[in-house]
Amino acid sequence: MKEHRAYRRLEAVFRKVSVLDGCLSVLHWDMSTMMPEGGAEARAEQMATLKSMSHDLLTRPQMAEWLDEAAEEELDPWERANLREMQRDWVHAAAVPADLVEALARAESTCEMVWRQARPAADFLMVLPSLRELLHLVRQAATAKSARLGVGLYDALLDQYEPAARSADIDRVFADLEGFLPGFVVKALEVQSRRPKPMVPQGPFPIDRQRDLGLQLMTALGFDFKHGRLDVSFHPFCGGYPEDVRITTRYDEDNFFSALMGVLHETGHALYDFGLPDGHWRHQPVGRARGMVAHESQSLMLEMQACRSPDFLAYAAPLMRQAFGGEGPAWEPDNLYRLGTQVKRDFIRVEADEVTYPAHVIIRYRLEKALIEGRMELDDLPAAWNDGYARLLGITPPDDRQGCLQDIHWFGGAWGYFPTYTLGAMTAAQLFDAAKTADADVVPGIGRGDFRPLMGWLRSNVHAKGSLLSTQDLLTDATGRPLDAAVFKAHLERRYGR
Amino acid sequence: MKEHRAYRRLEAVFRKVSVLDGCLSVLHWDMSTMMPEGGAEARAEQMATLKSMSHDLLTRPQMAEWLDEAAEEELDPWERANLREMQRDWVHAAAVPADLVEALARAESTCEMVWRQARPAADFLMVLPSLRELLHLVRQAATAKSARLGVGLYDALLDQYEPAARSADIDRVFADLEGFLPGFVVKALEVQSRRPKPMVPQGPFPIDRQRDLGLQLMTALGFDFKHGRLDVSFHPFCGGYPEDVRITTRYDEDNFFSALMGVLHETGHALYDFGLPDGHWRHQPVGRARGMVAHESQSLMLEMQACRSPDFLAYAAPLMRQAFGGEGPAWEPDNLYRLGTQVKRDFIRVEADEVTYPAHVIIRYRLEKALIEGRMELDDLPAAWNDGYARLLGITPPDDRQGCLQDIHWFGGAWGYFPTYTLGAMTAAQLFDAAKTADADVVPGIGRGDFRPLMGWLRSNVHAKGSLLSTQDLLTDATGRPLDAAVFKAHLERRYGR
Repeated sequence: MKEHRAYRRLEAVFRKVSVLDGCLSVLHWDMSTMMPEGGAEARAEQMATLKSMSHDLLTRPQMAEWLDEAAEEELDPWERANLREMQRDWVHAAAVPADLVEALARAESTCEMVWRQARPAADFLMVLPSLRELLHLVRQAATAKSARLGVGLYDALLDQYEPAARSADIDRVFADLEGFLPGFVVKALEVQSRRPKPMVPQGPFPIDRQRDLGLQLMTALGFDFKHGRLDVSFHPFCGGYPEDVRITTRYDEDNFFSALMGVLHETGHALYDFGLPDGHWRHQPVGRARGMVAHESQSLMLEMQACRSPDFLAYAAPLMRQAFGGEGPAWEPDNLYRLGTQVKRDFIRVEADEVTYPAHVIIRYRLEKALIEGRMELDDLPAAWNDGYARLLGITPPDDRQGCLQDIHWFGGAWGYFPTYTLGAMTAAQLFDAAKTADADVVPGIGRGDFRPLMGWLRSNVHAKGSLLSTQDLLTDATGRPLDAAVFKAHLERRYGR
Repeated sequence: MKEHRAYRRLEAVFRKVSVLDGCLSVLHWDMSTMMPEGGAEARAEQMATLKSMSHDLLTRPQMAEWLDEAAEEELDPWERANLREMQRDWVHAAAVPADLVEALARAESTCEMVWRQARPAADFLMVLPSLRELLHLVRQAATAKSARLGVGLYDALLDQYEPAARSADIDRVFADLEGFLPGFVVKALEVQSRRPKPMVPQGPFPIDRQRDLGLQLMTALGFDFKHGRLDVSFHPFCGGYPEDVRITTRYDEDNFFSALMGVLHETGHALYDFGLPDGHWRHQPVGRARGMVAHESQSLMLEMQACRSPDFLAYAAPLMRQAFGGEGPAWEPDNLYRLGTQVKRDFIRVEADEVTYPAHVIIRYRLEKALIEGRMELDDLPAAWNDGYARLLGITPPDDRQGCLQDIHWFGGAWGYFPTYTLGAMTAAQLFDAAKTADADVVPGIGRGDFRPLMGWLRSNVHAKGSLLSTQDLLTDATGRPLDAAVFKAHLERRYGR
């Protein structure tokens, strides 16, 4: 047996890259939660410097040779998968010159900081120059990667978040949903209109109590506070790494429900990270989460499938009443369930229900694809956005804060990310279905606030596999078939169609 | 005129090193304030990795050549001083092999995290193995630097914190203080006994109000919250960098005064950082603070000279009353002044008064010197510590929490630091004296809560000079003479001797 010399060298490089990623993750978390605004420029330089050092490591001259040599070495299946992921990372890194990496990192930080001011001010023009600069650089990166990967501009970006995903497939999935959903939204609204209108529990809900309730439910779901935190940021996210997972939310004193569901959503991301392979694989590409579709499937499963279910809300209602001293019919599980599954054509994606959510994603997907492919100008974005909402949801945002400024993604440089939400929702439905079938205690467990049956199944069938398999193989191994929109539609039918 | 080619190359390297230092500073702040305990190991690896990357930059093979070439180039005085500081950084870095740098960084993080548990548990044995490993590595570094710098083991470490300081000089200064202080402590206690005993305002003092009062006074002193924060940590410190200065404190619900003085102390450090040269020099060695003596002089000046003065307390007393709803004679400025200048032989350095403080430092200085020079074993530290307190202050700590576990320094790897506190106190007295002489509004300003006269003088005479001059020249330029113990003694005489 060979010594794996090239492979071992690669492992050492990728370990260092992973450690730098961890540093970047802390710097980004701090930027989003703690940093005073005057620290933005220095932070942008720090992050650009670390990204460029990481890029330097990945693109050192020997890498191509080591990757070739390692392919000839005898590797076990995890090592083989690790090498495949290394190869992929290397192609993405090597495609982009170092100065572009650094310029992108700076432009991302800068634009995100301007967006933080432009969003509350509903002022798209304020952020337009930074966004234009950023998009210009993103398109340069897309062009470079497109040539290297032999795929289109948009797919070259999408591939960063969801390996091997292609927009041709997404177009088919989205076309199918577009055929199904408009009619289904009408049906769901009609079904809903025959039920009692959900009552909204009346606040104010003090933020510290909202936080305490969030911590309590995070604990029930299995969040390990020895290895993580909950904080506040403009745009909720899950950051950090398995030893130290940082999730965030934003509170509204008039509406505890939305922030709480956000916390449970991010907890789903966190539990995936906690469950990733540890030990030797922790700092290797194969030890990472499979991709953003799998990641979003975990957050959406917890939020949508598990925590908006009647079973969970029956468990959580008394805790909610206790947290806020709530009384009366608005606090009954039935009402909370109607509230948590209320279908509404509305403006904000992160607050959207499961039925209208895909429309929010489809609008963004088409816009970002057009912008990346140069079929549209950034100046036209607000109008095109509002157009999309008028066409797909029949509503028009009153301003850009509730329109094209609402999401951080484009302003932070994440172009090609949005489709993963809806693919994630479909994956979530399919995985949840399989988990229920595999363990009859999954749903009763959720009703007791005991997520161990669900998490046990997810740990072994999803989390602990890291990036060993492709997304499709992971799903097929876990559920017996590749992604199948029928399971998602059946879930919607059950919950909203009758 | 030459092109400064070598010098410019050096500037590029040091800029990157400075940016990495900024990253490390954020990671350290997070570790001390926010990080869940389970994140410690990952953080240790992150910090070790960044430190070793920084070390790699500083010790790349071309550095020696560039430093030699740059010395021949035509440089202006700031560039010349910058080159001198680069040379110094390089000597320190090049002395220590890369694997030792990384091992030290890991051992520091590990030992500090164990200390966090050992300190409240008063369990020296818990931290002894980590501390032994750390000291072993620190002594290796000292040995390597000692050979390179041509100084003794202890001086090689001291030189990291206070360039060009030598223990032979410190021995003389401390011997002089040891001759003066024991008698003076007796005298001060005698003077104090003839005055009304200070009354202690009665709590509890809610932490959020303590925090608000701290923020209010920080603002009066000139802290810029667009570029900084106040948080909580086990051991108060000032971290970050001029664009984003992070200070911390620890609160006690029964005693607001101590935490508040701690906040004002750290604010002194922060104001130095805010006032450092910006623009081109911001990321160059010459743009850094002069050394830890100058840094401690700024914090001790604000805390001891300015904020424990009758003038400041007359201004602050109504704000304190307002913050806590305080009433009665305990809240009178006179009483608060007696409280803030109370001399007491006690165990905790950070809470010590100005008169006994040097004894705390002398004890630590002698112990760390003996440990570094191999004249003492770590196992004997608790007993030797208690011995020192018995001899110099006539008291014996009841446990190691109030003894040798109280300070973070040794457990975080900062050996050779302690003397800078007392040299800083003496420097503070001398600078404050000069500032008062230069601007008659310094003291009246402090009495109005207007620190602009004092800060204006400090900015131009200390802060904005960065590392242009040696500590001694900086002090001589600002005050007309080198460090002179007489000014410090005169201050003590005025405040405590009559």
